[in-house]
Amino acid sequence: MTVADRLKELGITLPKAAAPVASYQPLVVESGVVHLSGQLPFVNGALVTGRLGADVALEQGQDAARACGLMILAQLEAHGLLERVRQVVKLGVFVSSAPDFHDQPKVANGASDLMAEVFGDRGRHARSAVGVAVLPLNAAVEVDAIIALRD
Amino acid sequence: MTVADRLKELGITLPKAAAPVASYQPLVVESGVVHLSGQLPFVNGALVTGRLGADVALEQGQDAARACGLMILAQLEAHGLLERVRQVVKLGVFVSSAPDFHDQPKVANGASDLMAEVFGDRGRHARSAVGVAVLPLNAAVEVDAIIALRD
Amino acid sequence: MTVADRLKELGITLPKAAAPVASYQPLVVESGVVHLSGQLPFVNGALVTGRLGADVALEQGQDAARACGLMILAQLEAHGLLERVRQVVKLGVFVSSAPDFHDQPKVANGASDLMAEVFGDRGRHARSAVGVAVLPLNAAVEVDAIIALRD
Repeated sequence: MTVADRLKELGITLPKAAAPVASYQPLVVESGVVHLSGQLPFVNGALVTGRLGADVALEQGQDAARACGLMILAQLEAHGLLERVRQVVKLGVFVSSAPDFHDQPKVANGASDLMAEVFGDRGRHARSAVGVAVLPLNAAVEVDAIIALRD
Repeated sequence: MTVADRLKELGITLPKAAAPVASYQPLVVESGVVHLSGQLPFVNGALVTGRLGADVALEQGQDAARACGLMILAQLEAHGLLERVRQVVKLGVFVSSAPDFHDQPKVANGASDLMAEVFGDRGRHARSAVGVAVLPLNAAVEVDAIIALRD
Repeated sequence: MTVADRLKELGITLPKAAAPVASYQPLVVESGVVHLSGQLPFVNGALVTGRLGADVALEQGQDAARACGLMILAQLEAHGLLERVRQVVKLGVFVSSAPDFHDQPKVANGASDLMAEVFGDRGRHARSAVGVAVLPLNAAVEVDAIIALRD
């Protein structure tokens, strides 16, 4: 089954791949590994903004992390790499967090679960999840990724 | 000398490898390099919580960073990779920090010095250390790693 | 044209490569890829300190990010790697940020634009930019990097 078929089966439509908000690339392929820039959470074209533990609820944060994951897939698709995913190696999840919010792992699962749904075992990755003071454009979550490709 | 022998010589007993607190893997091996998920500091089975510069003293923070490093070693051992370490390449150290705490490098040395003690030159790594607003489960420190393996 | 020639053409003099402020290495080369430790912003030998959105203006922050980028180049030069850069793969940009500062991408461009100026297409990289609570020594910006080398 292709990844495109699997996405269809799951009822997932990928967003339009976002252009970088500054002078860098969405991704770079090096020695069979793609390094993806930090992706921000767009849901229905609107950026999910705010801070977990303050003005963003846990479920919204999980949706935001999933939206970052969908943007990772959209970037891969836009660069002809989606069907070449061999292994999701590492996700870096940055959660905009109030000082007393400690559920970054639950938020990050929004992105992690998506990878498992779409790629199965190939989607099972290492991960870091941390709470940061603030993110670009006041985004609630940012996710970057390292993904290994088939030839 | 094996790494196990060296640990014995140093009087180090590794903790039990912690299960991921969410839907990801403790580590992924890709092209001879292992990417380790962010590890949290367990000392005698209890998570070291709080914020450097507020309710966690510098020395406690260093112990916490060392505990994250020990958990990295425990994860490697649990996956049969400990004796295959060829080079510790990079540590990413996230320190839960009060806004006026600037000694993240000293905290991070808790993990860095451990790698040097255990692996000698093979343990000399690149590193980033930053102060973050808050960490999962209110952990004081989180450390992830990239480590190259022998065949 | 060598990188050294290009730097001369741009009127850029590299700073002295800073020694690590703790027990780690400025960089590690692994399988043709160099992992650089987080570099801090020294301008005319003085560390740029403070927080964007509070006591550091946007333009100062951009200069600080550029200074981090220059230090990356200085580290490469000090290790005989500057002329071997094949591709800047990924920059990780950590911006010390007040809670309502959202222009991390503009700050990070200080480093990204430098890479493009110096290396052209080889300098076009993936990037993550996040706002953190505080950085080592109260630095305004910290930048780490993954860079692929020619043989």
